[in-house]
Formats: sequence, C-alpha cells, structure tokens
Amino acid sequence: METAGRVIRCRAAVAWKAGEPLVMEEVELAPPKGGEVRLKVVATGICHTDSYTLSGSDPEGVFPVVLGHEGAGIVESVGEGVTKFQPGDKVIPLYIPQCGECKFCKNPKTNLSSKHQCLMPDGTTRFSCKGKSLFQFMGCSTFSEYTVVAEISLAKVDHRAPLDKVCLLGCGITTGYGAAVNTAKVEAGSTCAVFGLGALGLAAIMGCKAAGAARIIGVDLNPDKFQTAREFGATDVVNPKDHSKPIQEVLVEMTDGGVDYSFECVGNVAIMRAALEACHKGWGTSIIIGVAAAGQEISTRPFQLVTGRTWKGTAFGGYKSVESVPKLVEEYMNKKLKVDEFVTHTLPFENITDGFDLMHSIARCLVNIKYNCKIEK
Amino acid sequence: METAGRVIRCRAAVAWKAGEPLVMEEVELAPPKGGEVRLKVVATGICHTDSYTLSGSDPEGVFPVVLGHEGAGIVESVGEGVTKFQPGDKVIPLYIPQCGECKFCKNPKTNLSSKHQCLMPDGTTRFSCKGKSLFQFMGCSTFSEYTVVAEISLAKVDHRAPLDKVCLLGCGITTGYGAAVNTAKVEAGSTCAVFGLGALGLAAIMGCKAAGAARIIGVDLNPDKFQTAREFGATDVVNPKDHSKPIQEVLVEMTDGGVDYSFECVGNVAIMRAALEACHKGWGTSIIIGVAAAGQEISTRPFQLVTGRTWKGTAFGGYKSVESVPKLVEEYMNKKLKVDEFVTHTLPFENITDGFDLMHSIARCLVNIKYNCKIEK
Ligand SMILES: [Zn+2]
Ligand SMILES: [Zn+2]
Ligand SMILES: [Zn+2]
Ligand SMILES: [Zn+2]
Repeated sequence: METAGRVIRCRAAVAWKAGEPLVMEEVELAPPKGGEVRLKVVATGICHTDSYTLSGSDPEGVFPVVLGHEGAGIVESVGEGVTKFQPGDKVIPLYIPQCGECKFCKNPKTNLSSKHQCLMPDGTTRFSCKGKSLFQFMGCSTFSEYTVVAEISLAKVDHRAPLDKVCLLGCGITTGYGAAVNTAKVEAGSTCAVFGLGALGLAAIMGCKAAGAARIIGVDLNPDKFQTAREFGATDVVNPKDHSKPIQEVLVEMTDGGVDYSFECVGNVAIMRAALEACHKGWGTSIIIGVAAAGQEISTRPFQLVTGRTWKGTAFGGYKSVESVPKLVEEYMNKKLKVDEFVTHTLPFENITDGFDLMHSIARCLVNIKYNCKIEK
Repeated sequence: METAGRVIRCRAAVAWKAGEPLVMEEVELAPPKGGEVRLKVVATGICHTDSYTLSGSDPEGVFPVVLGHEGAGIVESVGEGVTKFQPGDKVIPLYIPQCGECKFCKNPKTNLSSKHQCLMPDGTTRFSCKGKSLFQFMGCSTFSEYTVVAEISLAKVDHRAPLDKVCLLGCGITTGYGAAVNTAKVEAGSTCAVFGLGALGLAAIMGCKAAGAARIIGVDLNPDKFQTAREFGATDVVNPKDHSKPIQEVLVEMTDGGVDYSFECVGNVAIMRAALEACHKGWGTSIIIGVAAAGQEISTRPFQLVTGRTWKGTAFGGYKSVESVPKLVEEYMNKKLKVDEFVTHTLPFENITDGFDLMHSIARCLVNIKYNCKIEK
C-alpha cells in the first residue's frame, strides 16, 4: 500500500515523563517535509544516553519524546528537494548532522555541526500521539517503527549491509573506535590504557589495535569483562580492586612512566582524572569518551598539563558523520571492523524495556532491538 | 689571574631559609667536574619562580640555595671531557637540560628531559658558604657572580649577543613565545586570547602575532598594561572588571563562539578555567603557561572537552633547550623577536632584593640584574 505523502500510524516506545518507563503506543508520523526523509526503522541499539535522558538526569531532556539514536532502516519516502536518498535506500540516522555549510562542517578539526535538536530543522516535530506532539530525540527517534530525520542527519550505506548489525555504527562503536584513530591519533608502537570495558571501551581497544598500538591495557572493576577485552585486542588487563595504590600510579609503574594514550569510557569524573594522570609526562594524551552526569566536574593539578599531558574529549569519535558512517560500514563489510561481536542480546521491539534492564545488568551495554513493523494508516 | 682548576670566591645572593630575604654572601665555588662548565654570570633576570621558591610556598623547595635561572654569562673554565664549550664562549644556562639521550630528548613531542635538579648530575653541589653546601637552583643558580652548570644545561650563543638582554631568553620570553608557536601551533588568521599581560603574556602575544593571528585579545585586570600589550600585537584588550558576566562569556560573545587559542599566563586556577571555557567548541585549545600555587587544582565540566576543546600546558615554550636557545638569540639579533622591550629596570647585583620588590609592584615582571664581579681566590 502506498504510504508516501500520508500520515503513518505505527508503534513507538514513548517516554511520556522523566523517570517513568517507556510506553508502547500507536503514534502518528507525518510525511517528511522539505529536506527530510522518512524511514522504516529495522533495528536499533539501546545506549546509555537513552537511559540517562529517560531517567530525567539530563537537565536538557525534554518530554514527551521518542528516544533512540542508534538505529538503521530503509527509506520509505523523501521530502521536497531531497535528491541524495530514494525509497529503498539503506540508511543510518546520525545524531550529529553534517550540513556541510556551517563553520563546524567547514573546519577539518571538528566533526560537530549545529547542535543536535529534539526537533526537525524547521522547529516542529513529525511525531504525535493522542493529540500531543512528541519531541524527536537527537533528531533520530529510532525507538519507533518509522521515523523522520533531516537529510543532513542521515547516511546512506551499502545495500548489502545487515541493518540489525550496522545500526551499532550509529553511536557507541564509532565513538570508541574513532576516539583512538581520529581524536587521539594513536601511533604504531604506542602504549594505551582503556578505562571501562563496555562497548565504548571495547571499541576503543579495537581502534588502538587497528592503529598498531604495542600495548593495550584494559582497566575495569569487573573481571568478567577481561576475556572479551583480550579478544578485542587488550594485551594486559588490570582490576583497580587488586591494588591498594590509586590506579594511575599502578599504570605509571607498569609502563615505566605512564601510557602514551588513555581513554575514559565510563563517564566517571574520578576515572577521567585517573586516566589523565596515568599518562606519560611530556606527551601523554587522555581522551574523555564517557559522558558524566550533569553538574559533575573534572579536576587535576595544573602541573599535570604544564609537564606535557594533553586532555581532550571526543563526540562520535571525531567522525564527520554523513561522509564517514558509510565508510565504516564498508570497513565492517570488509571484516576490518568488528560489529557482530558487540551484540549481546536481540529482542523484539515490544520488549524494549527489558533491553534497558539488560543494558544495566550485563557486562557489555549493547542490546539490539529488531522491529517487526506493522503499519496502520 | 688564572682561575681554572681553582676554587673561586665570589659574591652570591644566598637564600638561607624559606621566607627570609636573600643575603649577599661571599661563597666558594669549586671548579667544574667532568661534563660541567663554570661561567662568569654577566646578567640575570628575576622570575616569579625564584620568588615563589624563596617564599617557601614550593613544597619541593630546598634550602640553603642559590636561586636564579634566567641568566647569561661567559665560560670561565670547563670540566673534563667538555668539548662543546671553551673559555670565553657566551652562554645561557638552561633549567631544562637537553641531554640528547633520555626518552624525553629522543621524543619530538616534548622538550622535557630528566627532572631539573637542585644538584649537579653527580648529586653534589659546587657552592658552599661558611662551611655549608648550597643547593643549585634548577641546575642554574644565576644569582651569583660565578656558577657551575652541567654542559647538557647550557646553550652557546652568538658571541655578539648582548648578555644583559638575551639572558631573558633563558625563561619567560621563550616560554610565552613558544607556547604560541610550538605548543599551540597558532595558525595564520586565528583568534587568540592571552590572559595576564606580564612578561609571559606579552611574549605569548608576540608569538601569536608572529604566527599570523588575525585577532589577539589581551585580558588583564590592570588597564596600565593595555598600551604595552597593543605595542606587542594585541588587537583588542579586555578588562574583566568592566563586565558583570564571567570573562569567558564575554570572550565567547566577542568572538562569535570563542577563541581558537587561549593562553593562561597568570598561574591562577580560576583563570585557567576561564581560558579553557573561552575557547571555541569543536577546536579551541587552551594552553596553561602560568604556574599555580602548590596544591591548587583546575576544574571544569567534562562537557567542555567532549565538545572538542583541548587543554594543554607548556614548559619553556616547548623548546628543546640546547638546540633552540641559540636560534632564538639569532632571531633576536635579526630583530624578529623583541627582548629589549621586556626590560623595565636594570639594577646592580647588590640591589637584587629591590628587584624582587619591583617585580611584585610593576606591571611587567622582568628586572635585569647586572653583575660587576669581583673575584677573590
Ligand atoms: Zn549513544
Ligand atoms: Zn554543519
Ligand atoms: Zn622562570
Ligand atoms: Zn634528556
């Protein structure tokens, strides 16, 4: 049945209020306006950012909203003026757009663009439910059988790509991997430390290994994560619980002065400090990947920086989104990048709330949701 | 009279105890041992680091000590095995050595070497007074008519160079200038902010200008410093007292989003934070040059880094010392680098305590001490 140009009625997991569980609802999704694309969502990951926003901890969170920002799907229809996409294209929504025109997009030093919005570029939303407008989380809203995104927030990927896997390149894997290869620019022979061995940390390890690091030290409080970390490329694993000294001192001793690159993949400001202070004097660089809770602050003695350490952060691994995600999908298709190995559970869409519980209880944080869409118009 | 191989008795300003004024004493200076050089000090600057150490605020400060680390002189004699220097050479002592052999010296990313010592490399000192050994501050001890330094801590400079000027290339000017051209690698067309318009700040402005910065904003609470800052290259000056908003917000507004590079030249952790937060999202880099008091900490929200700002520091402007200081002297001789303009007062050695008072009271912090040595053997 032809759906283009018509409102789609489909299922979405709606976050009505901060701190309350998602509710599976039938929502109405308007057709894409100019410069927008409507897609059928085939799969989505669940990310800590979804959970953090749902909890109400993000002071910038808005409700009611359709969460989800790590999805993949198939173009259903395109709005006026859209020529880069056509129905049937396989696509990945991007929570950092690449408009190509703003001062960020034109600057090779950054992958940011205009701030991600919880509205379409025209300031409105395509989602509504029971007569109420729903915000569109980070311009993606993949916790819905269908969604509408701006074309500057969408990457077209290889038509052979398995969407239930490559959806994960829409956030965590890309972020951790890019932190190592783009933001840190890890060099062959380097010594690296990765704090936190969830999906971000494993992806960072994978990036360090791809860059030729000689030594990759995984750090986590949970020894259940060590085996997987080794499979991804960690050469050493350290549990801070096994040491009475602060972990930064342990690492400095293990590495004759500190690591060349460290990565904080937890979102804990004390660990961010440890990651910086584990770096070698003179040249060590620490990259913050994890997202700390609102209001928390990092601190250290300025001497740490004056003696040559560098403190940086990364968002989406430093990748310019529209141009890079298709390349990452190719790398996955060519077996240069692991993706399948990140998936711990696959659930049907209606069990998405179980997915949140699993993410919080399991060692790795990626849960794959497969959609089995039914549309009512 | 031939002095080589003999103990020299000369005047030195001795810091007997933390928190007490320097005392002009007659000291004994042993001949240089292997790998060491003895020099007649012709001039020295006074630096805040000397004053900070004298105050007792540095928990690593040791006493009694001969302070001073921003000097220039003429080689009097050399120890065994020293071939790079000979009597009569004009030289600048270096508080960061360049041994050429350690992992720091071999790494192009840093200019650090083994930690500066308050002793000669063999763990002893050449200075004594009234039967007591005196420590040698940062391996330099330029507050003395003669001193002994390790050859890895000494730069040979153009024999035409005026030592009472180029001594200032031994610390502050080099540090501020190099922070811009080496550590930040300021690019042509950049927008820069320099916090603190003392000698370090003026040198940083000079570096930004040399790198082709389009806009250089000087920030200071003291409007008396603005004219000189403009003479050095500042295109704008801002007094935080003239604004009710935090200075970082003022700068972000002035520059449509923030500066490309900022430099903290004060040593105040609150200003270090402001300097970072004045940087543009996506690519702004802040360099800490000032030295904060012991125990103080910098802090910010990690979001500042995750959204693309970089926090770094610099020591001696990132210059590998032995190889770079002679080149900086050449740049000065070729009028590419201002040095004379940094000198605010020139005092005889016996008035060195007045120099400390002047440094604390005047707008710029460089005071030149000229020696009029008399030697007793
Ligand atoms: Zn995410
Ligand atoms: Zn853009
Ligand atoms: Zn100094
Ligand atoms: Zn060295």
